[in-house]
Amino acid sequence: MSQPLLSPTLGVDIGSSKIAVSVWDADRCQSTRRFETIAGGPTENVSRIVEIGRELLGDATLSRIGISGGGPVDPERGLLLSVPNQGGWDDVPLVDELARGLGAPASIENDANACALAEWKFGAGQGARNLAFLTFSSGLGAGLILDGKLYRGHRNLAGEIGHQIIRPGGALCGCGQHGCLEAYASGKGIARELASRREQDPTLPVDARELVSRAQDGDAVSLDFLGEVAVFLAHGISNLAFTLNLERVILGTIAVAAGDLLLDPVRNELDRWLWPSIREGLEVLPAALGEALGDTSAYAVALQ
Amino acid sequence: MSQPLLSPTLGVDIGSSKIAVSVWDADRCQSTRRFETIAGGPTENVSRIVEIGRELLGDATLSRIGISGGGPVDPERGLLLSVPNQGGWDDVPLVDELARGLGAPASIENDANACALAEWKFGAGQGARNLAFLTFSSGLGAGLILDGKLYRGHRNLAGEIGHQIIRPGGALCGCGQHGCLEAYASGKGIARELASRREQDPTLPVDARELVSRAQDGDAVSLDFLGEVAVFLAHGISNLAFTLNLERVILGTIAVAAGDLLLDPVRNELDRWLWPSIREGLEVLPAALGEALGDTSAYAVALQ
Repeated sequence: MSQPLLSPTLGVDIGSSKIAVSVWDADRCQSTRRFETIAGGPTENVSRIVEIGRELLGDATLSRIGISGGGPVDPERGLLLSVPNQGGWDDVPLVDELARGLGAPASIENDANACALAEWKFGAGQGARNLAFLTFSSGLGAGLILDGKLYRGHRNLAGEIGHQIIRPGGALCGCGQHGCLEAYASGKGIARELASRREQDPTLPVDARELVSRAQDGDAVSLDFLGEVAVFLAHGISNLAFTLNLERVILGTIAVAAGDLLLDPVRNELDRWLWPSIREGLEVLPAALGEALGDTSAYAVALQ
Repeated sequence: MSQPLLSPTLGVDIGSSKIAVSVWDADRCQSTRRFETIAGGPTENVSRIVEIGRELLGDATLSRIGISGGGPVDPERGLLLSVPNQGGWDDVPLVDELARGLGAPASIENDANACALAEWKFGAGQGARNLAFLTFSSGLGAGLILDGKLYRGHRNLAGEIGHQIIRPGGALCGCGQHGCLEAYASGKGIARELASRREQDPTLPVDARELVSRAQDGDAVSLDFLGEVAVFLAHGISNLAFTLNLERVILGTIAVAAGDLLLDPVRNELDRWLWPSIREGLEVLPAALGEALGDTSAYAVALQ
C-alpha cells in the first residue's frame, strides 16, 4: 500500500449472489475484493470476509465496519435476517461476528437504506433533508431519509413502497397480493409483463435490460413500453410525494441504465398528478454513484 | 378564577366556521370560549381572539400560544395561508399578530398536524414513536409523528394521503384528479357516493353522519356501505403502513362516531393486505380525545 491508512473503514456489501469487501479511508475507496457467495449458509462466507478484510487492511487498525445486507435486517440486534436466493442465512448475527473477527465496531442496514445513505451523503441526494431512494432493480423498495435522518419505521420495515396497491385486483406480485406497484415497476414486473405480451409478439425484449437497450436504439415498441412503466412508477412516486412531501426521489439500477428515456416520462406524469406546490419542490433523479453504489452503501452504513 | 394560573398557555383553534380560544395550565383546559368566524377576513377575528384571550387570562402572565389552523400553514414564517370556505384569509401572519396582541411567543400548525400532536401526547397515540393521525372528516389528511417528532416534509405539505390514487380513473376528487383515496374515504366522498346511489334508492342516508347513525341502529344497507368505506380506508392505510411501518394509525371524526362498526372491518382488511410482520406491529384506533381534540390540538402546538 503506497500510503498508510489513517482511519480505515471496512464496507461489506452482501448481495444475493456476490459479496464485496472494500476498504475506505477519508471517504475514498482504497481497494475492493468481490467473491461469489459460497453456498450453504453464512459460516464460510463470514470467514472469507474476515480473511479478505485482514488482507486488505494489512497493519492498519480498523476503525469501523459497515454492512449493507441484501435482505431484511434487524439493525438494533445486528442481524441479517435472510438473503434472497440463499439458504441457511437465517437471523445471522453478522454485526457481532464481523466485529469479533475484525476487531472493530460494526453496524448493518438493509440495502435500500444503505443506498439511500450513500446517495444522500455522496451522490444525487447531497444537501437534501427529505428523500427516497428507490432500488428499482429486480424488486422495488425504498430507503427514506426524513428530516435529515434515516427513517426505519416501527420494526425496521419502512420503505416497502413496492407493495402499495396501484391496480386493485391487478397483476400477481411475488408477495402474493394483486396489483402491487412492484408487480409493474420492477425488473421482475417488467419481465412478467413482457413474457405475457411475447405470447402475441415474440419479437419483444425479454427483460428490463434488453428493453432499455432497445429503447436506447430507438425501438418504438420498447420506448412505448418504457412509457407504460413510467406511468406506474409515477403513480407510486406520486403517492409517496403526497404522503411525505419529498425534496428528491432517486432511482437505482433500471433508471440509471435508462436515464431520461425513462425519467422524463416519469417527470411529465408527475407534472400531471402532483399539486404544483408539491411538484415544484421535488426532483426526480437517477442514482449518481453508478457502479460504486454497492461499496459506497456499505461504507455509508459505517458512518451512521 | 378559583386558583391563580401558574404558567398559562393559550390554544387557538381556527376552524372553517368556528374559532375556539382556550386557556391551559399544567396540561389542563381551564376554560374555553368559541365564536362563529366573523365573515370578511382575519382582522376582526384576530381582535376578537385577543380580546377573549385577555378576558380568560385575567391578571395571569401568558407563557405561550399554540394555533391550530384549519387550512394550509407555513409554520416557519408563522402564516395561516388560507381557511376553507372563508374569503380574505390569505397568508395571514397569525403568529406575529397574536404574539403581539397577547404578549407571548406563538406557533402554528395545520389541524391534521396539531391533532396528531394532541393524540400523541394526550390521546390514543401516547407512548408511540411512529404514528399517523387521519382526520377522516369532510376531507382526509394525515399528521405524521415519525421517530418521535412531527414530520412536516420539504415544504410543510406532508400528510396529503387523501390524494394517493387508489382507483385509477375512478371517482372525481375535489382536487381535480380521479380516484383519490379522499374521493372515497372522507365525508365528502361518502356523501358523493350516497348521492349517486340515491338516484336508484332514495331511502339511502344522505351523508356520513346519517350513515353511521343508521348503521348503529342495525340497518343492513348502511352496514354494507360502511364495509365498502372500510375497504377504501384499509387500502390507504395499507399503502401508508408499507411505506412507513407505523405503530399506530389513529382516525378522527367519522371513525370516532362509527367506532368498531367501521374499524373492525378496516382491521380485518388490513389482516389480508399487510404482511404479518408489518400488520402485527400496527394498531388502528379511533381518536381518544373526543370533543376535546380541537382545543387540545391547539394546546399541543404550543408545547412543540
